[in-house]
Amino acid sequence: MKASELAKALGGTLEGDDVELFACGGLEEARAGDLSFCKDPKHVKLVESTKASAVLLSPQWNRGAPCAIIRVADPDRACMAAARIFAPPEPVRAPGVHPSAIVDATVKIGESVHIGAFAVIEKGVELGDGAVIEAQTFIGEGCRIGARTHIYPQVTLREGTVIGRDCIIHCGVRLGGDGYGFTTSMEGGVPRIDKIPQLGIVEVADGVEIGSNTTIDRARIGRTYIGPMTKIDNLVQVGHNVKIRGYSGLIAQSGVAGSTEIGRGCLIWAQAGISGHIKIADGVQVGPQAGVPKSLDGSVTYVLGTPAESKRDFGSRLLLPRIVEKLKSEVRELKAKLAQS
Amino acid sequence: MKASELAKALGGTLEGDDVELFACGGLEEARAGDLSFCKDPKHVKLVESTKASAVLLSPQWNRGAPCAIIRVADPDRACMAAARIFAPPEPVRAPGVHPSAIVDATVKIGESVHIGAFAVIEKGVELGDGAVIEAQTFIGEGCRIGARTHIYPQVTLREGTVIGRDCIIHCGVRLGGDGYGFTTSMEGGVPRIDKIPQLGIVEVADGVEIGSNTTIDRARIGRTYIGPMTKIDNLVQVGHNVKIRGYSGLIAQSGVAGSTEIGRGCLIWAQAGISGHIKIADGVQVGPQAGVPKSLDGSVTYVLGTPAESKRDFGSRLLLPRIVEKLKSEVRELKAKLAQS
Amino acid sequence: MKASELAKALGGTLEGDDVELFACGGLEEARAGDLSFCKDPKHVKLVESTKASAVLLSPQWNRGAPCAIIRVADPDRACMAAARIFAPPEPVRAPGVHPSAIVDATVKIGESVHIGAFAVIEKGVELGDGAVIEAQTFIGEGCRIGARTHIYPQVTLREGTVIGRDCIIHCGVRLGGDGYGFTTSMEGGVPRIDKIPQLGIVEVADGVEIGSNTTIDRARIGRTYIGPMTKIDNLVQVGHNVKIRGYSGLIAQSGVAGSTEIGRGCLIWAQAGISGHIKIADGVQVGPQAGVPKSLDGSVTYVLGTPAESKRDFGSRLLLPRIVEKLKSEVRELKAKLAQS
Repeated sequence: MKASELAKALGGTLEGDDVELFACGGLEEARAGDLSFCKDPKHVKLVESTKASAVLLSPQWNRGAPCAIIRVADPDRACMAAARIFAPPEPVRAPGVHPSAIVDATVKIGESVHIGAFAVIEKGVELGDGAVIEAQTFIGEGCRIGARTHIYPQVTLREGTVIGRDCIIHCGVRLGGDGYGFTTSMEGGVPRIDKIPQLGIVEVADGVEIGSNTTIDRARIGRTYIGPMTKIDNLVQVGHNVKIRGYSGLIAQSGVAGSTEIGRGCLIWAQAGISGHIKIADGVQVGPQAGVPKSLDGSVTYVLGTPAESKRDFGSRLLLPRIVEKLKSEVRELKAKLAQS
Repeated sequence: MKASELAKALGGTLEGDDVELFACGGLEEARAGDLSFCKDPKHVKLVESTKASAVLLSPQWNRGAPCAIIRVADPDRACMAAARIFAPPEPVRAPGVHPSAIVDATVKIGESVHIGAFAVIEKGVELGDGAVIEAQTFIGEGCRIGARTHIYPQVTLREGTVIGRDCIIHCGVRLGGDGYGFTTSMEGGVPRIDKIPQLGIVEVADGVEIGSNTTIDRARIGRTYIGPMTKIDNLVQVGHNVKIRGYSGLIAQSGVAGSTEIGRGCLIWAQAGISGHIKIADGVQVGPQAGVPKSLDGSVTYVLGTPAESKRDFGSRLLLPRIVEKLKSEVRELKAKLAQS
Repeated sequence: MKASELAKALGGTLEGDDVELFACGGLEEARAGDLSFCKDPKHVKLVESTKASAVLLSPQWNRGAPCAIIRVADPDRACMAAARIFAPPEPVRAPGVHPSAIVDATVKIGESVHIGAFAVIEKGVELGDGAVIEAQTFIGEGCRIGARTHIYPQVTLREGTVIGRDCIIHCGVRLGGDGYGFTTSMEGGVPRIDKIPQLGIVEVADGVEIGSNTTIDRARIGRTYIGPMTKIDNLVQVGHNVKIRGYSGLIAQSGVAGSTEIGRGCLIWAQAGISGHIKIADGVQVGPQAGVPKSLDGSVTYVLGTPAESKRDFGSRLLLPRIVEKLKSEVRELKAKLAQS
């Protein structure tokens, strides 16, 4: 898109060459063909050294730029508007069933449902109005998907999985796999390992988003439950019979072991791990890489470390080397004094 | 199912309304339509406040319940029986090849093998009697799958992978990807990175279970080996040339780096990491999030922390802040005394 | 293959039985049918106890072996040559489009491109000369794939993803999923969570390799960038707007949070985590399981621990229990002396 056209679209004015622009980029990372933006008038050096072909600047900016300028009243707003213009157009997933999809005759398909190429939808499945089931997805027997829920390509839902309305399930998500459960015994001096049947399901409430390649296991008995508006990032593991009450976030690569309950409004940061059979109270945050072995009752609202402790305790642990060094020299002094006396 | 029918099926008697029941649920998480169960007679408050529509109780329980009661001799047993009744019926994977599957003419298919929709099975593959290959799975050239092994949808087996009998491979598992191996050098002042050919395979012995989205890399030379009855959870990483001798467990999101050997009867807990080129002796457990940089000879049977140490050492490390605090006050006292004397 | 044939192929001579050989295996792990190799003349006991059927030995070795010997000038070289002979033959991905693939009429296909079974390639996609798109892969609208790039089965590329030349994308990789971004507010006493549109793309430069089931999110605005020759292992998470400048490695299960920049020649070890909105200078290594909360300017070249610190600081932290123990006994002595005086 020509800079002049973009300036017009953004309600701004172009100063300098009418360059061709293809994408947005931060001041530092931008390259030829990029439109950049300066949100903070202090970033003089970043503007001076940018490799962008054009930059969004406010009327107040009077230091020029090494590229074209698109002068706009509110660079922040204009930047978002430009991003929408440059964004790859969202693919249209029109209502209809792709002729290559294999959909069992018993499937109940709501109005305006999209089913993509090579999808497999087994018997007894129910798809709510406006649901989007993208290509190559597997939906096992008896699953129920709510209205307007969007399932991206190559998701697998094992039999009996229930998903609410307005959910987004990203590529490669696995819902309803068997939980990890075995009994171990000895039989004539030889170890014997038996699988514990995993008889429950996964149930996902309304407004949940689940990131790429995340795995959520079916319950041993009853349901593994992901409450409303829970937002789960990529590569997260949720064990069998976990209950997440809702309005919580689980950031990438975190994991929650079996039968644990997570309250409302919790935030589990990246790579954190939560043991099985415990409870995390409403509103508690578990910091990145923290490991939580015991229930958290909410008296501490942010925990860090393994085993997880309060920020304060974690902080004083970090200071130990310095404190011990000081103690060493004090003891040395005391010894010297005592030797003299 | 009507509560009366269920009571009959469980050999119990119904007290109260003949409600409709759909699923099992713990006392706390249960909702209308659920059957709950009380295993511990001390859980009086949980029974009183449950939202279940019915609850399994023993003949000894004389405190009533806020819902229907199904009175049974052994609530524990009855609960398992009810779970089986409510469980989504296991899909039947009848012998036969789905017409949409692409199976090379050279594939050797045993008796009663199931091959699902959109599966791709390349030349020279051998499938043992009773093997189940679910929909959308990819089995590369020359793979061999043992009798009764069940491969869930959307698994990929790269060429040459060998899987034993009675294994369960969950959705999204990747076996036989290239191991991570590169050589780095400088060439005329410019860095050069070359791929080291990964020429081996993955071999999985009998009775192994591998969880959703787990990845196991092919050997650089020879084989990456997963021994008999090993149980691997979701999102686990196993590097090239790892050897797991057997009867061991790897819990979710744990990782084992290249060429490491793990003995029999080991348990690697969630998110633990084991360095490359080391040995873990038989029966050793590596705690959650632990990091093991060196071989463990079995003299310590449970390790924790990064770098991993004995429970005792890990425990005393946790106590350091308290000990240091005490030392500080003792030194302060000594100083005061010495100043007086 | 007969040992005699193999000896001939390797330019060596066979001593002992002309056994049948099937695979390579280390001295300890080898089993009947394996060819093993001894690279270090000190490994006398390993040779004596190997279960291999044949072993590669140098002319200098004069201690015999419990199996056939293939005598070669350079066992190291011969071992690599034998590995190539035993390796499963690399599948031929001949130019052409599998008849089952669904390729939009607008897709631009270069010369000698392979497209596998059940692949879905949407409108506006461009595939460079010699690109290999394996079975069951999904390539969304407007993606561009460079020459000779190899995409293994069951990869998903969301709309607008750009991949350079000579890349290798392993099974189950997810490129271009929505980044994790939400705004939270209260609306009439009820929490409200809104999705922040993720308008950018993922761009992967030339010579990049990405391991199985790794996930890389599309930018919020602009591009998430993986620079040239970056090598990413399995199950790695790369957040939105991350910029990896190039020639760096990210080992298995590591994660990089949104908007962080990683310099050239960095190595992020397994299970390490890097916070969002920071910079890692060129050449810095982040040790296994380390957690990096702040930018690293390169003054320290290898960091460990959570929060990450220098090897030296991490090491002295490990020694704390011993130092504190010594301090305790010194204080005890001082007390005793003071009591006497």
